[in-house]
Amino acid sequence: MSTSSGFPIGELIKQFQLTRILKGDPQTKSIALLGTINQENAIVSLEKSHFITDELNFQLEQLIEEIVTINHNDIYYWSNATLTQNLTKLPSAKVNLIYPATETHIKKYDEQKTHYVVETPEMYNKYVVPYIEGMKGDRIKWVYNILFEGKESETFVHHDTDPESGFVLLPDMKWDTINMESLYLCAIVNRKDISSVRDLNESHLPFLINLEKVIRAVTTQKFPVNSDELRIFIHYQPSYYHFHLHIVNIRHPGLGDGIAVGKAILLEDVIENIKLVGDYYQRRKIGYILGENHGLWNTEGYREDHLNSIKEKI
Amino acid sequence: MSTSSGFPIGELIKQFQLTRILKGDPQTKSIALLGTINQENAIVSLEKSHFITDELNFQLEQLIEEIVTINHNDIYYWSNATLTQNLTKLPSAKVNLIYPATETHIKKYDEQKTHYVVETPEMYNKYVVPYIEGMKGDRIKWVYNILFEGKESETFVHHDTDPESGFVLLPDMKWDTINMESLYLCAIVNRKDISSVRDLNESHLPFLINLEKVIRAVTTQKFPVNSDELRIFIHYQPSYYHFHLHIVNIRHPGLGDGIAVGKAILLEDVIENIKLVGDYYQRRKIGYILGENHGLWNTEGYREDHLNSIKEKI
Repeated sequence: MSTSSGFPIGELIKQFQLTRILKGDPQTKSIALLGTINQENAIVSLEKSHFITDELNFQLEQLIEEIVTINHNDIYYWSNATLTQNLTKLPSAKVNLIYPATETHIKKYDEQKTHYVVETPEMYNKYVVPYIEGMKGDRIKWVYNILFEGKESETFVHHDTDPESGFVLLPDMKWDTINMESLYLCAIVNRKDISSVRDLNESHLPFLINLEKVIRAVTTQKFPVNSDELRIFIHYQPSYYHFHLHIVNIRHPGLGDGIAVGKAILLEDVIENIKLVGDYYQRRKIGYILGENHGLWNTEGYREDHLNSIKEKI
Repeated sequence: MSTSSGFPIGELIKQFQLTRILKGDPQTKSIALLGTINQENAIVSLEKSHFITDELNFQLEQLIEEIVTINHNDIYYWSNATLTQNLTKLPSAKVNLIYPATETHIKKYDEQKTHYVVETPEMYNKYVVPYIEGMKGDRIKWVYNILFEGKESETFVHHDTDPESGFVLLPDMKWDTINMESLYLCAIVNRKDISSVRDLNESHLPFLINLEKVIRAVTTQKFPVNSDELRIFIHYQPSYYHFHLHIVNIRHPGLGDGIAVGKAILLEDVIENIKLVGDYYQRRKIGYILGENHGLWNTEGYREDHLNSIKEKI
């Protein structure tokens, strides 16, 4: 490794001693490393650079340095390649350094191991119900502040105060509120008796159908987006146990696990499933991805029952 | 550009004449190019490779070739770098080629407007069934090449030739076959009578349960991954109408729409739904994201029925 003299990052990175890899993301092609520089913690994160697609000057032959076929079948060929690089015009990666890094920085970048859990109704009743009880009260005070105390009300897209059918529709924290392609709204219902999808049954059908109707009507009226450009879904497990929905532009790039099967469930699916089987969500095994830092994972007995339920599949 | 002799892709790519850039995705660091080789259409797609994080041998100093600081502020530094490359051990990109490419291929890779379609059973019978018929024959010859002609058989992870219950398990084209975090396998069944999830009913339960069982057993035996680290799903609409499954490491954190609700359906969900309601997939409205270039979107009447079905929701 050579560094341009006078610039500090190269000199610092030369001294970086790896402690461990915090996380890697094959989708965005990025990694975060924990290590030390001069006995102090440091975090180095690397992310591969995007291709520069200046159409006029783009030359595939100049971009590819060497290429080796992995395989081919009929008209399909796939291969690995090395690419032409240039530090200033065609870099291969962005490298960020935090030095010295605090414990908070480390936790933020640290990856937790995740598992695909197949939750049976029995597991739900045994572990999730008591867990949810412990997640109420002060932990969702911020939700009640929005619903009943006017918190964030200046951002409300819609507010219906009816205690049964009403809800607040507001921009999600993740949305910059500008870029319509990444439109991300959140609907939080006023009623307090639905903690998660597991509580929903045929008695909620009119409530859910009306919810979808109003969300679609208001969103398409207030924003330049069509009803068939919305992905409306919930999460199981949700991040807080007060019924809420996510409303996202279907073109939103890169929501990761937030819209993935094993976490997201379309409102459409919820409604249609309950129409078919009234107690669908009380009877179904539900699979979801759970991180080891999640409270449920650390509930006594939960892990063993999970392992038994997944073992049955082999 | 130099190519390893005896491998065809390098020679073909040397002759590639760019027509236009079909799409670029800065999140996944990938681009798709339309061009010609010998006057015939060809699509080259490139995707940057993920970092190889073999903790024991990982050396930041060996990975970074040159580095130049962009800026720094307090404890935060950011910079650009060039990286060490090696064609076989440390490639920089995966390069796929489709040649000759049909209009269907071009449409699939082209940037396009998308819609959330709520497909009723009536729409399925009226539009999708005839559409699927037209997508058989030569269009899935490559699938039969794999299943019955030994194509790609050197890469097979598993091969059970039983015409009813058998299937091939092999690395998906999207996987570099090296990085376990992005493990991506594909299971293609031998039987030809299942075009999509819409064909599945209670008669397929033993078949599907066995499929999941064997996939989990073989995958965890052949690769350093646990059963509860696998996300197993199908697509609706699928990209080809011969029943196949996707098997992905749950840590592959976002494959874009590939694992999103509105396209991906967990095998788990399929099995549990059919257990609850035998003709679940014949009775359900199914919502999915569809691009305007998709053949279905351009089927007469389909669009109107879609708009009517989404209008009912407002």
